[in-house]
Amino acid sequence: MSETVETKGRMTLPVEQGIEEELRSMIQKWGADAVRNSDGTELPEELKDLGLEVYSTLCMVRADQKYAKANMDKAQQKYLCSAFVTAESKMVKIDILKEYYKEQFAIDTKHNPKKWWEVIDRTADKKVAPKNWDFNPKTGVVTVKDCKPYHQYSVSFLVYQIWDSTSMYNALTNDWAGEHPTSVDPYQPEVFEHLLKFLDEWLERNPKTDMVRFTSVAYHFTNIYGHDANPKYRDWSGYTDCISPLAIEDFKKAKGYALRPEDFIQGGLFNDVNAVPAPQYLDWIDFINAFVVKLCRAWNDRVHKAGRKSMMFFCDHWIGTEPYGERYAKAGFDGIVNACKNGLEARRIADVPVDIVKEVRLYPYFFPVNLKNEPSFAPGGNPKQECVDFWVDVRRALARNLVDRIGFGGYPSLAIKYPDFIDYVAQLSEEFRTMHAHTKQSKPYQSTVKVAVVNCWGKLRSWICKEWEGGGLMETLTGLPLEVQFINFSDIEKHGIPEGVQVLINTGNEGTAWSGGAHWLNPKIVAAVREFVHNGGGLIGIGEPTAIQNQGRFFQLADVLGVDKERNLSRGKSKPETTSQESHFIMEDQDGAPNLGKCADQVYAYTAQTQALVKNGGDLIIAANECGKGRAVYLAGYKHNWANTRMIHRAIFWTANKESELKKWFCSNPLTECAAYPETGKVFIFNNTGKPQSTTVHSDKGGTVEVSLDAYASQWREMTDFE
Amino acid sequence: MSETVETKGRMTLPVEQGIEEELRSMIQKWGADAVRNSDGTELPEELKDLGLEVYSTLCMVRADQKYAKANMDKAQQKYLCSAFVTAESKMVKIDILKEYYKEQFAIDTKHNPKKWWEVIDRTADKKVAPKNWDFNPKTGVVTVKDCKPYHQYSVSFLVYQIWDSTSMYNALTNDWAGEHPTSVDPYQPEVFEHLLKFLDEWLERNPKTDMVRFTSVAYHFTNIYGHDANPKYRDWSGYTDCISPLAIEDFKKAKGYALRPEDFIQGGLFNDVNAVPAPQYLDWIDFINAFVVKLCRAWNDRVHKAGRKSMMFFCDHWIGTEPYGERYAKAGFDGIVNACKNGLEARRIADVPVDIVKEVRLYPYFFPVNLKNEPSFAPGGNPKQECVDFWVDVRRALARNLVDRIGFGGYPSLAIKYPDFIDYVAQLSEEFRTMHAHTKQSKPYQSTVKVAVVNCWGKLRSWICKEWEGGGLMETLTGLPLEVQFINFSDIEKHGIPEGVQVLINTGNEGTAWSGGAHWLNPKIVAAVREFVHNGGGLIGIGEPTAIQNQGRFFQLADVLGVDKERNLSRGKSKPETTSQESHFIMEDQDGAPNLGKCADQVYAYTAQTQALVKNGGDLIIAANECGKGRAVYLAGYKHNWANTRMIHRAIFWTANKESELKKWFCSNPLTECAAYPETGKVFIFNNTGKPQSTTVHSDKGGTVEVSLDAYASQWREMTDFE
Repeated sequence: MSETVETKGRMTLPVEQGIEEELRSMIQKWGADAVRNSDGTELPEELKDLGLEVYSTLCMVRADQKYAKANMDKAQQKYLCSAFVTAESKMVKIDILKEYYKEQFAIDTKHNPKKWWEVIDRTADKKVAPKNWDFNPKTGVVTVKDCKPYHQYSVSFLVYQIWDSTSMYNALTNDWAGEHPTSVDPYQPEVFEHLLKFLDEWLERNPKTDMVRFTSVAYHFTNIYGHDANPKYRDWSGYTDCISPLAIEDFKKAKGYALRPEDFIQGGLFNDVNAVPAPQYLDWIDFINAFVVKLCRAWNDRVHKAGRKSMMFFCDHWIGTEPYGERYAKAGFDGIVNACKNGLEARRIADVPVDIVKEVRLYPYFFPVNLKNEPSFAPGGNPKQECVDFWVDVRRALARNLVDRIGFGGYPSLAIKYPDFIDYVAQLSEEFRTMHAHTKQSKPYQSTVKVAVVNCWGKLRSWICKEWEGGGLMETLTGLPLEVQFINFSDIEKHGIPEGVQVLINTGNEGTAWSGGAHWLNPKIVAAVREFVHNGGGLIGIGEPTAIQNQGRFFQLADVLGVDKERNLSRGKSKPETTSQESHFIMEDQDGAPNLGKCADQVYAYTAQTQALVKNGGDLIIAANECGKGRAVYLAGYKHNWANTRMIHRAIFWTANKESELKKWFCSNPLTECAAYPETGKVFIFNNTGKPQSTTVHSDKGGTVEVSLDAYASQWREMTDFE
Repeated sequence: MSETVETKGRMTLPVEQGIEEELRSMIQKWGADAVRNSDGTELPEELKDLGLEVYSTLCMVRADQKYAKANMDKAQQKYLCSAFVTAESKMVKIDILKEYYKEQFAIDTKHNPKKWWEVIDRTADKKVAPKNWDFNPKTGVVTVKDCKPYHQYSVSFLVYQIWDSTSMYNALTNDWAGEHPTSVDPYQPEVFEHLLKFLDEWLERNPKTDMVRFTSVAYHFTNIYGHDANPKYRDWSGYTDCISPLAIEDFKKAKGYALRPEDFIQGGLFNDVNAVPAPQYLDWIDFINAFVVKLCRAWNDRVHKAGRKSMMFFCDHWIGTEPYGERYAKAGFDGIVNACKNGLEARRIADVPVDIVKEVRLYPYFFPVNLKNEPSFAPGGNPKQECVDFWVDVRRALARNLVDRIGFGGYPSLAIKYPDFIDYVAQLSEEFRTMHAHTKQSKPYQSTVKVAVVNCWGKLRSWICKEWEGGGLMETLTGLPLEVQFINFSDIEKHGIPEGVQVLINTGNEGTAWSGGAHWLNPKIVAAVREFVHNGGGLIGIGEPTAIQNQGRFFQLADVLGVDKERNLSRGKSKPETTSQESHFIMEDQDGAPNLGKCADQVYAYTAQTQALVKNGGDLIIAANECGKGRAVYLAGYKHNWANTRMIHRAIFWTANKESELKKWFCSNPLTECAAYPETGKVFIFNNTGKPQSTTVHSDKGGTVEVSLDAYASQWREMTDFE
């Protein structure tokens, strides 16, 4: 272990006035080399001697409230949908904003409702002719006439968003009083120009800023509040807050067709990230992305001209940036940063396919309560243990792909009250810098097994969204010694399964963007996957993979997966009897029945040769099937834990027909994992649990070393130790 | 209690040779007045003095095997579908009968395959041009050329059914050797004529027969066996066994359009009774029904001309008869009989809307094993307890609508070995005759609450099919003091909710014939139900009522039901918070949380005023909602038990806005029930459990009587006792 581990660097801290001495000690203990200013906080003069870089937070669209309030017709807009209201006679009145938070939205009376709005008979699924409805701007009520009694009607209408979503969230969550900042829409040419001017001035006003930390760019993710000031709809990937008549008109010019309000509303689904995206929604994302990248570039050109650097916060107003999109490199950021509480969020930053500085802001946030609203930096809280628990998941992901920097956020005055936390972060920071010292950010050994996850979002939304049934699997994948790529159905339709991929994974519930819905009616896609497996590829399906009712079956690749799901349409059909296998390569390290969480039910063997690995009564929970030269594994559900991680690890190698490659840089104890770095000759071995563990580490050449690790501990070894 | 209860009558027994004395004793103890002969058994001479009617079993389509075997081209036919086979190149060979039981089916090589068969690309959902495939009658193989690689192909082909389904079932189940009887197809004109001649001769040959017990008519329900001689597909209501080229040609003339093989095959779903029936399938049922009724009438005319009567066994070859259809009265039967192990099967017979003799054959069948293949009339069996358990369910249904006769089936030589069983049936027979004596088959008091169950089958399939998720609810309904009718979606579309109905029930899983699938996209149907509730009607939804994804919601009447189901397409949507009600009229008699069996998950309050009665974590299990002047109740699942029976009883009265009518001829103890007969002034009170029960019986005028009942016991009281 001759590499020098730096005692300082790769660590960003928030600053706060009035605790200069404690801050100095914290900065030194943690080895921080950068501080993050934000509104109202600035690096204290006393700490200038520490040679710290200064990162300054800037949210362009809400930074200049004087301009915003003077130009409320340039506030950001979106479509909302009124409640569905039953017509009890031939006339119905709809108070369109009734269900929404009136501090957040104001009805747009500037653009002609007859042109821009839609009244829909939701029962007949028909648009109501504009002559049959009227809007009263004084009352906010739409009156529909010539209704069909007992049909339900709704109004899709434009609003201005008069309170910026993040400001509103913070104010409502923390009971803050004060002004309601409004975000302006940079799609409006005057706003675009104004913001450039504003930025130039801001850079001049902030000469000490080294790094402009844009928080984030133009458009906030969807966050709609209801009449009771409680959240009504939220989608971290939602593209609602970038809608305006001008953008819609430009979209038509760019894409050759017009969007209608219902393309955004979708009966209230708002193109939820979990739903199969319609082609026009994908076009809309692309259209907004092109604009936002142009905007970013204009800003970054100014930042660079001023001799500064810029970083993008991959949250809040991130919509339109799409860091995994083709255009992101052109946006011109020098770095990207995001909050990160697990492997998924770590890889989401680490894997962004642009060579810029990547920073993860670790948890817990220095705040009295945590994300679950439990005490954190407050009596009853245990911020150290919180930090350990997050770090265990993050560390294994970083072992696969290391980011450049870590950081923390919040109020240091709270953190300094917890010396065990301060000490733990010192240790964590050292562990992080040690990873840099020993890996030089080189690639760890990975097996020849390449995995592709197919869903509707593909590469564009790599490692995106934990809040769905495939989330647990993604978390597991973040730390496995495998190349993981994300593809969409169009990729398969056009190019087949990507060259070099050995295992395809499809996971999710029927009809979701993750499972794929109607894409599984596309014969090109179905045949491509079937051919892939017949010729030796592997398929892992979880939950309701390839699912859509068609041709008498539900899983369109039931023949490949070896299973189908009874949807109560063929109860009279006898299902092949299966008996649970006594043992199988996939299940070898399991101790007892696996807990896969919520499982699809009524899944049965579709073929007589399907192997049942785990059953629950008559339902298959885990099954394996051979199909041509290939193999498939089905799991009725999945949740991330270390026993399941090992099972998925084995399932991938089994379906890839690469069982012999499993025990290469492999820990016998599933509660431990390792990563080897051939370029530096180092091996990183870590304990994912709070108890001491012993493990046999297998090298790729057959050598083994016994290793003992304290709770959560990691150890570095030389590859030569294994010879 | 002055009415004379007959000591004999309304009871049919099977006969058997060699146990004449025991049979005499049994007949006398049970008060049997009729015996059932079947092939090989006949009323022994020694018992002639008992004055018994003789019922003789006759299955016309397989009775004359000499004719059947000489006319194998007139055997019954059907379409089968080969396995879906993957084309690994541009050519694929399909051994079409490979998956099927070759003792049951022979490929039809008489009718031109190119005309009558279909080869389908199942991956592309396209019919393959006949020029691109060939059938080799020697090998049974279809070769498809110009395939798309890795598409799957199947062949829909005609077969002759060479072994009658019931004979095959009996032979395979009991390991019987012997000939394989073949059923002939009376649709063929020569067969039609031959059977008439045969029937005349049979009647002549069987002068002692008083009642011809047709078992049943022409076409067996669908019962397809696989290559391993095990059941592959079974549907008690399936219309597959009546298919022939001639019938298909005549269908085209009658209905004006042609059916294709896929109309029968449906990718292997075979128009399962659980699936939403296609219009062409409903037309096919209607077409076959018209023919079968014509056939029945021809037979019954002969029977009557010979001075005999006839009865139809409502099972086995019952397809085409449709006892709830418009034509059934014209078929000319004097009676209908079916096996009956619960209230549902009892009402299925009792409610047949034709005034003929109705008989239920009770269980257990005198056979060593029971329907679950457990010992019955064999060591380890307890036929008396089996009989009690069945009778408890049957009795409460008969209290609502009394059949004319009961009976048993099987081998009396087995039954006589169980004296406790013999004694119990004597008691049961007396209880049944007492019901006749005290009710004179008059209508029991029922509340003014009328219930309609809506599903795709409606009246045609009243009380049909227990093997689905609504089965438990139907069983509960069989004994409630309510009028229950069954309607289909077309009834609602054309006529709205029937006059007088106060509560509509929709129960089932999405996309099934029971829930209704795409019928809930029909605005006329949706608006009619919504109007019904807004104007004071009640709606009870169970499982996935009114379910189909549309306009952003899953339950199309979510606004009425007050609930919707999250299908993972709108996870970002906040759901109204609900708190469980402390008490509600519906839940008043519940002792602890109800067990509704398997429940729909992720059901949430759709409106803020939805009342949560029972929750499971965040999921609603039971909810109530008020909508306009009407009310709705939602249950996430249902299973039949006495606690749930009471809950449904209350839920119906609550949704009907008739809480005040609940305690009219009502038992305070939910384990007991009662029925009052205004015409005779009698009250029947019974204990549904194996433990003694006390109960307060409420009359319709407010009077009460305390009653104690032994295990399973019943008691008759005078209505005047309540004054």
